Amino acid sequence: MTVPSIDPFHAITLSALAHRLAAEGRSIIHMEFGQPSTSAPRGAIERAHHVLDTDPMGYWESEPLRVRIARHYAESYGVEVSPDRILLTSGASPALVLALTSCFAPGARVALARPGYVAYRNTLRALHIEPVEIPCGEKERFQLTAELLAAVEPPPEGVIVASPANPTGAILSGSELEAIAAVCRKQGIRIVSDEIYHGLSFGDPAHSALEYEPDALIVNSFSKYFSMAPWRLGWLVVPEDKIAAARARMGNLFLTPSSLSQHAGLAAFDCRDELDRHVRTYRRNRDLLLAALPAWGLQRIAPPDGAFYIYADVGHLTQDSLAFCEQLLRDTGVAIAPGVDFDPVEGKRFIRFSFAVSTDCIEEAIARMTPWFAAREAETRPIGQ
Amino acid sequence: MTVPSIDPFHAITLSALAHRLAAEGRSIIHMEFGQPSTSAPRGAIERAHHVLDTDPMGYWESEPLRVRIARHYAESYGVEVSPDRILLTSGASPALVLALTSCFAPGARVALARPGYVAYRNTLRALHIEPVEIPCGEKERFQLTAELLAAVEPPPEGVIVASPANPTGAILSGSELEAIAAVCRKQGIRIVSDEIYHGLSFGDPAHSALEYEPDALIVNSFSKYFSMAPWRLGWLVVPEDKIAAARARMGNLFLTPSSLSQHAGLAAFDCRDELDRHVRTYRRNRDLLLAALPAWGLQRIAPPDGAFYIYADVGHLTQDSLAFCEQLLRDTGVAIAPGVDFDPVEGKRFIRFSFAVSTDCIEEAIARMTPWFAAREAETRPIGQ
Repeated sequence: MTVPSIDPFHAITLSALAHRLAAEGRSIIHMEFGQPSTSAPRGAIERAHHVLDTDPMGYWESEPLRVRIARHYAESYGVEVSPDRILLTSGASPALVLALTSCFAPGARVALARPGYVAYRNTLRALHIEPVEIPCGEKERFQLTAELLAAVEPPPEGVIVASPANPTGAILSGSELEAIAAVCRKQGIRIVSDEIYHGLSFGDPAHSALEYEPDALIVNSFSKYFSMAPWRLGWLVVPEDKIAAARARMGNLFLTPSSLSQHAGLAAFDCRDELDRHVRTYRRNRDLLLAALPAWGLQRIAPPDGAFYIYADVGHLTQDSLAFCEQLLRDTGVAIAPGVDFDPVEGKRFIRFSFAVSTDCIEEAIARMTPWFAAREAETRPIGQ
Repeated sequence: MTVPSIDPFHAITLSALAHRLAAEGRSIIHMEFGQPSTSAPRGAIERAHHVLDTDPMGYWESEPLRVRIARHYAESYGVEVSPDRILLTSGASPALVLALTSCFAPGARVALARPGYVAYRNTLRALHIEPVEIPCGEKERFQLTAELLAAVEPPPEGVIVASPANPTGAILSGSELEAIAAVCRKQGIRIVSDEIYHGLSFGDPAHSALEYEPDALIVNSFSKYFSMAPWRLGWLVVPEDKIAAARARMGNLFLTPSSLSQHAGLAAFDCRDELDRHVRTYRRNRDLLLAALPAWGLQRIAPPDGAFYIYADVGHLTQDSLAFCEQLLRDTGVAIAPGVDFDPVEGKRFIRFSFAVSTDCIEEAIARMTPWFAAREAETRPIGQ
């Protein structure tokens, strides 16, 4: 085997350009990354201040936080999860690494939807696991289906499901997730479910894979609903038969997450009012964008059921989404992400808006983008050609 | 390939027992883990308070911190390191994962000294890289030598060097490190140098592998000298030809370390007075232990040149270091680590004391252990038999 080369994340390149333009005095609106622009909730910050003043701290895995997360599964999904099955991690990214290394060996095949979060494909490849990408288009609501998964030959060893999904925000219905779980049980496919956008739904709340498959591994974090992305705190739920493997890897590959973040994360569970206000802001932002898109000629979008994204087809304007995003940024100061980060095949004609910013920012971004898109429609030469 | 089973870290089991005993009202002295009992330096904590109050923060990689670390290499070792070659990580553990996955594929062979830090062997195995353990005994000062490395047949793809080492505290001399680098250059062996205990030396300061091999990868962190273990902040230095591979893995497998920790870490560089006071405490603790050991019959110890460990041969008292440590803990309340965590072959007759605690604690621990060891000497039956 050789050390594989891994794709860069183009949104990082665009963000770097945005910061350079800002340094030159340009007004920039950041909609390129999937992170709330809000701080951690007040209760979490107050708890951090208190701990900083009173506790020298040490390597630590918070038992109270694991118990609280276990209670969250009972309260939100009606499923029983023992705190022993919960591992605290430095965010969802290392939780995914833990899940994959605990379940799959090099050479294994793991299925996932395309489009999808770029790190799934790249992390699988970095760990020498073969990503089996399943194209999921408009017909499938840009989400995995039981039917598509069942058609993979030979059956993969694992599947990554994500609902609400990045970059689309599309949510798997309970019945579809149940059907996927049934296919997995029948064919011996291990489910790794990324539930990082749970809590951010604009219709029915998302279901956990644990409701349909008690042996699924669940990745989650405090980065999205809890608005604590820079605190780097996440968790992994493993089935009983994977506790020893996952704990051994946690201790050796990662040790523990930040102790201060664990204290703050526990406090964040008591800040629902503040956090739910953010969700209402996202809903407002989403509604404003959905109202603006038709005038921009963006009619073909993935269903924005949850998360804080709109994934839109701009194939009538470009076949080079990276050049398109760079032009938009240079012309308007609005930074968004190119579809190529999420879909190496079809992504060249898609863009992703992240609306996890203030409503003022969204209104300003819309005011800048409306004439820009009108000018693009009027041009005959697509961007990037 | 299959998913390998990974050894547990026995010190964690002992620590859990220590905490249970404490909950029952016992007085416990924690010398089982390699972490300072002191908090982050005052300047780092003040900076964290300030950032918490003024900055909502976001995913971030601190350019000022990378520049400051680069300056540290110029000031401390006289080597030029561009900030571009420095990646900030959530501690030394993920820095090691980054280094290994960026350089070695499954099936590769990587050499390392035995005894050594348990996570080297376990992380290599978790990543399907074969650890080639080189027994290093009293004759070799429990450290790797150029001669031993050159004798490995066939030559390994990589080597992990660690100086000061865990569990021994033994430091590689500049000339030995230079000789190791020469062997590596000749045989095409990539050096990964764990320099996490730099700054904690009781004689000459430790040398960086970068002084002798500019293409070495360097793992380091804020957990030891900077007394910020629970903040989970470390770094990796990579050569130019590994920047793209390491950055791609960082972004996908880990994203970024805690933003608050990065702010605090930068401030910690200006807290040398406070941190150097800790080093003086460790020196005092070490001298007290070294004075006490002969009376306990512990004459054969690894050279405690740096770090905050004493690794001692207790083969005349036991061939089961785990049972020995458990008995010591139950009888005296002093928690230490068994050698089996660091050496699966010879470790059954070794124990590791971590003296990164207050001098009061060390004095109390010595007072408790002196009669206990005397009683062991008087017994005819070794512990664990």
